[in-house]
Amino acid sequence: MTTSPHAYGKTGIWLIGARGSVATTATVGLAAISAGLAEATGCVTEQEHFGGVALPNFADFVVGGHDISDVCMAKRAEALVESGMLPLHLVESVRPQLVEADQRVRPGYNPAQKSESQAEVARRLAKDILDFKDSNRLERVIVLDVASTEAPVQPIAEFTDAHLLLTALEDPARSVLPPSSVSAYAAALAGSPYVCFTPSTAFNVPALRELAARHHVPTAGQDGKTGQTWLRSVLAPAFAARGLRVLSWAGTNLLGGGDGATLADPQAVSGKLQSKNRGLQELTGGAVTPLHIDNVQDLGETKVAWDHVNVEGFLGSRLTLQTTWSAYDSMLAAPMVLDLSRLMALAHAAGEEGHVGALGFFFKDPWGSDEHSFANQTHNLLEWAKNASATLGTGTGSLDQQ
Amino acid sequence: MTTSPHAYGKTGIWLIGARGSVATTATVGLAAISAGLAEATGCVTEQEHFGGVALPNFADFVVGGHDISDVCMAKRAEALVESGMLPLHLVESVRPQLVEADQRVRPGYNPAQKSESQAEVARRLAKDILDFKDSNRLERVIVLDVASTEAPVQPIAEFTDAHLLLTALEDPARSVLPPSSVSAYAAALAGSPYVCFTPSTAFNVPALRELAARHHVPTAGQDGKTGQTWLRSVLAPAFAARGLRVLSWAGTNLLGGGDGATLADPQAVSGKLQSKNRGLQELTGGAVTPLHIDNVQDLGETKVAWDHVNVEGFLGSRLTLQTTWSAYDSMLAAPMVLDLSRLMALAHAAGEEGHVGALGFFFKDPWGSDEHSFANQTHNLLEWAKNASATLGTGTGSLDQQ
Amino acid sequence: MTTSPHAYGKTGIWLIGARGSVATTATVGLAAISAGLAEATGCVTEQEHFGGVALPNFADFVVGGHDISDVCMAKRAEALVESGMLPLHLVESVRPQLVEADQRVRPGYNPAQKSESQAEVARRLAKDILDFKDSNRLERVIVLDVASTEAPVQPIAEFTDAHLLLTALEDPARSVLPPSSVSAYAAALAGSPYVCFTPSTAFNVPALRELAARHHVPTAGQDGKTGQTWLRSVLAPAFAARGLRVLSWAGTNLLGGGDGATLADPQAVSGKLQSKNRGLQELTGGAVTPLHIDNVQDLGETKVAWDHVNVEGFLGSRLTLQTTWSAYDSMLAAPMVLDLSRLMALAHAAGEEGHVGALGFFFKDPWGSDEHSFANQTHNLLEWAKNASATLGTGTGSLDQQ
Amino acid sequence: MTTSPHAYGKTGIWLIGARGSVATTATVGLAAISAGLAEATGCVTEQEHFGGVALPNFADFVVGGHDISDVCMAKRAEALVESGMLPLHLVESVRPQLVEADQRVRPGYNPAQKSESQAEVARRLAKDILDFKDSNRLERVIVLDVASTEAPVQPIAEFTDAHLLLTALEDPARSVLPPSSVSAYAAALAGSPYVCFTPSTAFNVPALRELAARHHVPTAGQDGKTGQTWLRSVLAPAFAARGLRVLSWAGTNLLGGGDGATLADPQAVSGKLQSKNRGLQELTGGAVTPLHIDNVQDLGETKVAWDHVNVEGFLGSRLTLQTTWSAYDSMLAAPMVLDLSRLMALAHAAGEEGHVGALGFFFKDPWGSDEHSFANQTHNLLEWAKNASATLGTGTGSLDQQ
Ligand SMILES: NC(=O)c1ccc[n+]([C@@H]2O[C@H](COP(=O)([O-])OP(=O)(O)OC[C@H]3O[C@@H](n4cnc5c(N)ncnc54)[C@H](O)[C@@H]3O)[C@@H](O)[C@H]2O)c1
Ligand SMILES: NC(=O)c1ccc[n+]([C@@H]2O[C@H](COP(=O)([O-])OP(=O)(O)OC[C@H]3O[C@@H](n4cnc5c(N)ncnc54)[C@H](O)[C@@H]3O)[C@@H](O)[C@H]2O)c1
Ligand SMILES: NC(=O)c1ccc[n+]([C@@H]2O[C@H](COP(=O)([O-])OP(=O)(O)OC[C@H]3O[C@@H](n4cnc5c(N)ncnc54)[C@H](O)[C@@H]3O)[C@@H](O)[C@H]2O)c1
Ligand SMILES: NC(=O)c1ccc[n+]([C@@H]2O[C@H](COP(=O)([O-])OP(=O)(O)OC[C@H]3O[C@@H](n4cnc5c(N)ncnc54)[C@H](O)[C@@H]3O)[C@@H](O)[C@H]2O)c1
Ligand code: NA
Ligand code: NA
Repeated sequence: MTTSPHAYGKTGIWLIGARGSVATTATVGLAAISAGLAEATGCVTEQEHFGGVALPNFADFVVGGHDISDVCMAKRAEALVESGMLPLHLVESVRPQLVEADQRVRPGYNPAQKSESQAEVARRLAKDILDFKDSNRLERVIVLDVASTEAPVQPIAEFTDAHLLLTALEDPARSVLPPSSVSAYAAALAGSPYVCFTPSTAFNVPALRELAARHHVPTAGQDGKTGQTWLRSVLAPAFAARGLRVLSWAGTNLLGGGDGATLADPQAVSGKLQSKNRGLQELTGGAVTPLHIDNVQDLGETKVAWDHVNVEGFLGSRLTLQTTWSAYDSMLAAPMVLDLSRLMALAHAAGEEGHVGALGFFFKDPWGSDEHSFANQTHNLLEWAKNASATLGTGTGSLDQQ
Repeated sequence: MTTSPHAYGKTGIWLIGARGSVATTATVGLAAISAGLAEATGCVTEQEHFGGVALPNFADFVVGGHDISDVCMAKRAEALVESGMLPLHLVESVRPQLVEADQRVRPGYNPAQKSESQAEVARRLAKDILDFKDSNRLERVIVLDVASTEAPVQPIAEFTDAHLLLTALEDPARSVLPPSSVSAYAAALAGSPYVCFTPSTAFNVPALRELAARHHVPTAGQDGKTGQTWLRSVLAPAFAARGLRVLSWAGTNLLGGGDGATLADPQAVSGKLQSKNRGLQELTGGAVTPLHIDNVQDLGETKVAWDHVNVEGFLGSRLTLQTTWSAYDSMLAAPMVLDLSRLMALAHAAGEEGHVGALGFFFKDPWGSDEHSFANQTHNLLEWAKNASATLGTGTGSLDQQ
Repeated sequence: MTTSPHAYGKTGIWLIGARGSVATTATVGLAAISAGLAEATGCVTEQEHFGGVALPNFADFVVGGHDISDVCMAKRAEALVESGMLPLHLVESVRPQLVEADQRVRPGYNPAQKSESQAEVARRLAKDILDFKDSNRLERVIVLDVASTEAPVQPIAEFTDAHLLLTALEDPARSVLPPSSVSAYAAALAGSPYVCFTPSTAFNVPALRELAARHHVPTAGQDGKTGQTWLRSVLAPAFAARGLRVLSWAGTNLLGGGDGATLADPQAVSGKLQSKNRGLQELTGGAVTPLHIDNVQDLGETKVAWDHVNVEGFLGSRLTLQTTWSAYDSMLAAPMVLDLSRLMALAHAAGEEGHVGALGFFFKDPWGSDEHSFANQTHNLLEWAKNASATLGTGTGSLDQQ
Repeated sequence: MTTSPHAYGKTGIWLIGARGSVATTATVGLAAISAGLAEATGCVTEQEHFGGVALPNFADFVVGGHDISDVCMAKRAEALVESGMLPLHLVESVRPQLVEADQRVRPGYNPAQKSESQAEVARRLAKDILDFKDSNRLERVIVLDVASTEAPVQPIAEFTDAHLLLTALEDPARSVLPPSSVSAYAAALAGSPYVCFTPSTAFNVPALRELAARHHVPTAGQDGKTGQTWLRSVLAPAFAARGLRVLSWAGTNLLGGGDGATLADPQAVSGKLQSKNRGLQELTGGAVTPLHIDNVQDLGETKVAWDHVNVEGFLGSRLTLQTTWSAYDSMLAAPMVLDLSRLMALAHAAGEEGHVGALGFFFKDPWGSDEHSFANQTHNLLEWAKNASATLGTGTGSLDQQ
C-alpha cells in the first residue's frame, strides 16, 4: 500500500446512501483491505505509478453517513452475499467494522417526511458531518453521494439567483431543491470536499454552486463511470485515432438490484440516460446513439450491457464491433469510492476549490472538464495528482493545510 | 487533404504482393482519393491534428510492385467487388489507374522456381525498384511487404554472422533466407525505406539487419495491427489503468479470402499467432491467452474475431467482457498502407535510419519499440511526426534530403 | 422445383405495399427463380419432404398490387442493390419482369387523401383485384399485406357489431377502420385468400371477420416470423424440454430501411412489440421480457437483434445464453411471401375457409392457433399440407374448386 | 414429484468417477431434492407430460461408485462451493448424505497401478457393484460413467473378435482395453444397465459389445449433450426447416475445472471434438465446422461457448447468428444423470436390452440412433417412455421384472 510522506491524520468518509449496495461494498472492502484480508484490486491509486503521490492510507479512514433506509449495513451485506456478489468469509471477518460504521449512520433527508425548511435540513445534515468529524478526531471528512438516482428537475428562477434561493430555502412551506442538492449544500456548510457519484441534480444548480463557493471546498462529479460508459470512453477515441467514423452506437443495459429497481422509474432513468450519452455524443461527433436501461431483477447485482457499434471505414466500407459487459456493478463502483476519498483528501490538503476537472477520469459527466477520452483522462489524473502532491508539506502533517 | 510545406516531388509505393487483396485495395483507394471520388476515411494522417505535419499528397504517389501471381490487379479488384467488399462503381472509375499500376508489377521472388543465387535475386529485385524510380522520376520509393504470410524459419549460424550470410547468399546452391528477407534486402540495396506489414521473417535476421544498415534506410514493422490485436491494445491498457487484473483473454478469428487460405497452413499460422499474442502478453503481464485462426472461406473477405476477457476486480470479484469484431480485413489494412507510405517518406526525408519505433502505432509486433498501448502509441506517433517535420526544409524541395 | 399433380392454372399474387422492400424482393426473387437464375433457398415449400404436396409452380404466378408510393419497383430494387442487399446482376436480369409487375400496381388506400366512404374504397380495391384476375386469366388471386406497419387502434362499438360497422363503412364522413382492415375487407369482397404479413389491425375486428366470413375465403396471419421472434420460438420450447426455467429474456432490435423509419414512430412500434412478445410470454410461462426496436438508418436494410436469456437450472444455478442475429430482413420475408402464396393457393383449392391455423408456422402472432413452438409448428404445417393435398382432385384442374 | 404406479423398490446409482464434479453435484442434488430442499429444475423427467410415465422416486435412489481419487465427495463439494457453483447452505444440509455416499465409493481401475489381468479387474469391479446391490437391498443398480475423458484408442484385432478379446483380457501381461471399456464390461457382468456420459471408448468395441450382449442389459450413450452441442441440435434443424443453408458453424469452448484440465491434453480432447462435431456435420449436411476447446482455469467450473453460424438465404444472401453460452457445466450434467438413472431403471424394468436409441435425447453421439435433431429426440423420448411404461405391471412390483 502507498505510504504517504504527507501526514494526513485520520480522514472521514461520509456516504450519502450509506446503507446502499455501493456504500456497503466500499465499507466491506475498506475494512478488508485495511485488515490485510484483501488486495486493493480495482483501486486506481494503488498502482505503481501513483507511488509518488501523497495519499492517506486506507487504514486511516473512518466511515459514516446518511441514509433513509432502516436496513443496516450488515444486513445489506448479507443480502449481497446471498446474491453471490460478496464472499461470505470476508463479510464475516469484517462484521464488527460494519456494525461500527452503521452506528455512525444518521437519518438522511427524506422529503416525504419533511417538516423543517430545507435550510434547516441542510444545517442538520452538516451538523451530523461535523459531529462525526469531532467525535472521531478526523482531519477532514470527504462527503460522497452514493444515494438512489433522482429524477431530473425543472429549473426555476431560484436556481440562477442566489438571493432568491436562500430565501426559498428558509421557507418551511417550500421544497425547491431535490434531496441530492440539499445534501451537497450540507457538505459545503460543513467545509467538506464533496463527490457526486450519481447523476442526480446535486450542484447542477448555479445559485447553489455560488453559495457553496463561499465555503471554498473542492467538488468532483458526476455519475461514476464504471462499466459501459467507461468502455465507450476507451473505444470511441481509439476509433477516432484511426480515422474511422462511428455512425451509430446502440446500447442496452440490463440490471437488477436496488439501482435496477430505481431506474425502472421512467423519470429517474431519464437523468441516467442523459448522463450516459453525453460523453459518447461528444466523442463521436454526434453519432446515432439509442440507449436503454431495463430492470431485470433476476440478474441480481449483475449488470449486463450490450453495445453495437457501426463504423464507416475506407471507401465507405462498414465494420461492426459488439461488446458484452457483465459485472457486479457495485464491485466496480466501490474501489472508485475509495480512490475518490483518497484523491479528494489530497485535493483538500492541496487547497483546491470548486470542480476538480482532473477527477473527470472517474465520471460519466465530468464536472469542470470537457475531456471524455479515457486515455487522456488517465494522463491528466496522474499529472494533477503529482502536481497536487508536490504542493503539500511533508513533515508537519496535514493540519497546516486546514 | 493535407498540403505539405515540404516539396516531396513524386513518391513511389512499391508493393511486394502487389496483386493481393491489401495491395489492390490500397491501389484502388489511392486512385479514388486522388481523383476526389472518395474521402480518406481510415487514414490516420488525414486527421486534423496532423495538419502541421509535412507529408506527400496522395496525388503524388505512383504504385508498382512485385508479385508471383498472374491474376492482374483489375481482375483481383473484380473479385473483391464480387465478394461485396469493393463498390463496383469505384472500381470501374479507377480501372485505368489499376491497369497502369499493374503494368508496373514485376515478377517477385518465387523460391519454387529458383535458379540464381539469392544475392542475384536481391539485386534483380533492387534493379526493378530503381528502374521504377527512374522511369517515373520519383524522389524516393517506399517498399512495403504485403505478400502472403510465410512460415517462421529456424535460425541458422548465417543469421548472426554477416560474413557467413553474404557468402551463403552468393551460393546458387543455397537458399538460406525466406523470400520476405530477400525482398527486404533488395529494398535496402535500392536505398528504399522498407515497411513490413506481414509477420514474415523479413529483417528479423540480425546479420541481414547489419547488411541493410550499410544502406542507411529507415525501416518499420511488423504485421499490421488492424483488427482484433488493435482492439486488444486499446482495451488492455485501459483495464490496467483501472487497477483491474486480466486473468485470461481468449480469442478466435474466422477469416476467408487469400489470407484465410494461407493461414489454414499450420506452419504459416504459427508466425501470425505469435505476432498477435506478444503484445497482449506484455500488456496483461502474462494472462492466459489461447488464440485460434480458422479458415472459413464462406466468409469471403470478412474477418470475424471473438474475444472473451475474464478480469479480476475488487475483492476477488470477476467481470467479463466479450467483443465481436466483423470487418473487411483489407479495408482496414489499405489506409494504413497509405499512411505508412506517407510517414516513411517523411522519415526518409528527415534522414531517419533503422527501425522507426514511433511507427509501432501501426503494428502488432513493433520494431524498435516495446510500447504496445494504443493510446501511448497514438501520442508517440504524433510527437514523432511533428518533430520529424520540424527538421525538414520547406522551400527547396526534398531533393536536398536525398 | 415441385411439380404439382393438381392443375392450378395461373395464380395471382396481389401485394398490398407492392413497392416496399419485402414486396420488391419477393418479386425479384420470383422472377429469378422462375427464370432458373436462382435457387429457391429459404423457401420452406421447396424442401424434399414437401415433395408430395400439391402446390402451384413458381413460374405460374403473376404479381400485381396496391401501393401509395410513386417510386416504382425497379427504382426500389436499385436502392436495394445500392444498400448491398440485392445482387446487381440479378436485378438487371429481371428488370423487364419488375417493370411489368409495377405496371399492374394500382393506387392503394391512402386515408390522408380520402373522399369516398370506406365501403366504396373497399369496393374499388376489390375491383382492382378482380380486374387483375380477369386480364391475366388467373384461377385465383392471393392477397398479401406487406404494407407499412400501422399503429394499433382503439376498439369502438362498431368493431363488435356487424350491422353498425356496415352502416359506418357506407358513411363518407367516417373512417372507422384502419387501412389494413379496409384492404383485408377488399380481399374478401374479391373472393381472395388473404394473408396478413404485418402486425396491423387487418381482420382483428370481430365484426369485420363476420362480414368477411360471408365470402368463404381462407385467411392467414399475422406478422411474419422471420428473425428474432423465430429464433425465440425455436429456443424457448427447447429450454422447456430440458426442464430449465427461463427467468428473463431481454431483447433489442436495431434496424434501418423503410421498416426502421416506420417503427421509429412510438405508436407504430407498440403494435410490433406486442406482436413480438406474445408468443415468448406463452412459451416461457411469463418471464420478464423487456424489448426494444431502434431505428438505426446507417444499418441500411440490415436488422441486428441481440437477446439475453437468463435461465434457472439445477439447484437454483443460473445459465445465460446470448444471441446476436444479423440479416437482411426482407431476404427472410420474401421467400415466406412466396411460400404463403403457394400454400394459400392450396388452402383455397382444398376449400378451406377462415383462419388456417397450420400456417402459424410463418407468424409471430398466429391466427387460429395457440401453438408458438417452432418445432411443433413445423410438424403441423407439413401434416396440414399433406392432408389438404390429399383432398384435391388431380386431373380436372382447380376450376372445380372455385 | 412423479409417483410411480410401478413398484420399483430401491434403485442404486453407481457412478464411475464418483468423486468428480458431475458425480458430486448429482449426489448433492439427489439428496437435496429427496429432502425437499430443492426442486428438480433441469430434470426432464419431472415435467408435466412425463406424468404418465412410471419412474422410480428420487428418494428411492442410493448412490455409490468407483473413483481413483482420494479427495472425498464432501471435500469436492466444498471446492465447488468455493468456486461459486454450489450453494453453501445446500451442501451443509446434505453433508451427512454426502459422507455416506462417499463411504460406498470403491477404488476404480487405475491402469497406472495395474497388476491383475483386465478380466480380473472387471470381475472385481462387478463384485463391488453386486456387493453394493446386496448390502443396500437394491432392486437394480444403474451404472453411469462420469469419469475423466480418455484419449481415443487405436483399434486392434481383438476389438472385432470376441474370442481373441477374451483371451487377451485374461492375460495379466496385456492391457488391451481402456479403463472405460473395462468398467462398461464390469457393469454388464454385474447385470447392470449402463450409461456412458463421456466420449470415452466404453462399448465402442464391437467384440466387447458382443460379450456384453450375453448379459442382456440395456445400454445408453454417449457423451452428455448439455451445452453448446445441445444448442446446435436445437438450431440446426430449425434452419433446415426454413430452407436456409448453413455454410459454416465455427465454435470455441472455454472451460476450467477438472474437465478443462483433462481436455488440455491434445489426445484427450480429440475424442471430445469428434463427439461434438459428428451431429452437427449430419444436421448441416457437411458445413465447415472448426471447433476448439481451451483450458482456461480462471473460469473455474464455468463453461463459455461461442458459436458463429454463417447461413445462405434467399438469392444467395447471407445471415449470421452468434451465440454465447455461459453455464456451470456440471449443473447441466447432474440433472441428466438423475434423469438417466430413472429412465434406465424403466428400460431395465421393461426388459430392454442393448442400445436404447430413444435416450439419444441426452447425448452428443447417440448410441442406437442417427437422430440428432433435439425436437425429434424430444418427441421420441416421450413416446418411448410411455410405451415402456405401458409394458410394466403395476401391482406386483418390479421384482417380477428381474
Ligand atoms: N457501478 C455502479 O454501481 C454505479 C455507477 C455509477 C453510479 N452509480 C450510482 O450510485 C448510486 C447508488 O447505487 P446502489 O447500487 O448502491 O443503489 P442502492 O439502491 O443499493 O442504494 C441507494 C441507497 O441510497 C439511499 N437513499 C435514497 N434516498 C436517500 C436520501 N435522500 N438520503 C440518503 N440516502 C438515500 C437508499 O435508502 C439506499 O440505501 C445510484 O445513484 C447509482 O446510479 C452506481
Ligand atoms: N487486415 C489485414 O488485411 C492484414 C493485417 C495484418 C497483416 N496482413 C498481412 O498482409 C498480407 C497480405 O494479405 P492479403 O489479404 O492481401 O493476402 P492475399 O493472399 O490476398 O495477397 C498476398 C499476395 O502476395 C503474393 N505473394 C506471395 N508470395 C509472394 C512473393 N514471394 N513475392 C511477391 N508476392 C508474393 C500473392 O501472390 C498474393 O497476390 C498477409 O501477410 C497478411 O497476413 C493483413
Ligand atoms: N423480415 C421482415 O422484413 C418482416 C417481418 C415481419 C413483418 N414485416 C412487415 O412487412 C411490412 C413491410 O416491410 P418493408 O420492410 O417492406 O417496409 P417498407 O417500408 O419498405 O414497405 C412498405 C410499403 O407499404 C406501402 N404502403 C404504406 N401504406 C400503404 C397503404 N395504405 N396501402 C398500400 N401500400 C401502403 C409503402 O408505400 C411502402 O412501399 C412491414 O409492416 C413489416 O413490419 C416484415
Ligand atoms: N456438462 C458436463 O459437465 C459434461 C457434459 C458431457 C460430458 N461430460 C463428461 O463427464 C465426465 C466428468 O466430468 P467432470 O467435470 O465431473 O470431471 P472431473 O474431472 O471433475 O471428474 C472426473 C472424475 O473421474 C475420476 N476418474 C478418472 N479416471 C477414473 C477411472 N479410471 N475410474 C474411476 N474414476 C476415474 C477422477 O478421479 C475424477 O474424480 C467427463 O468425461 C466429461 O467430459 C460432462
Ligand atoms: Na463537463
Ligand atoms: Na393465436
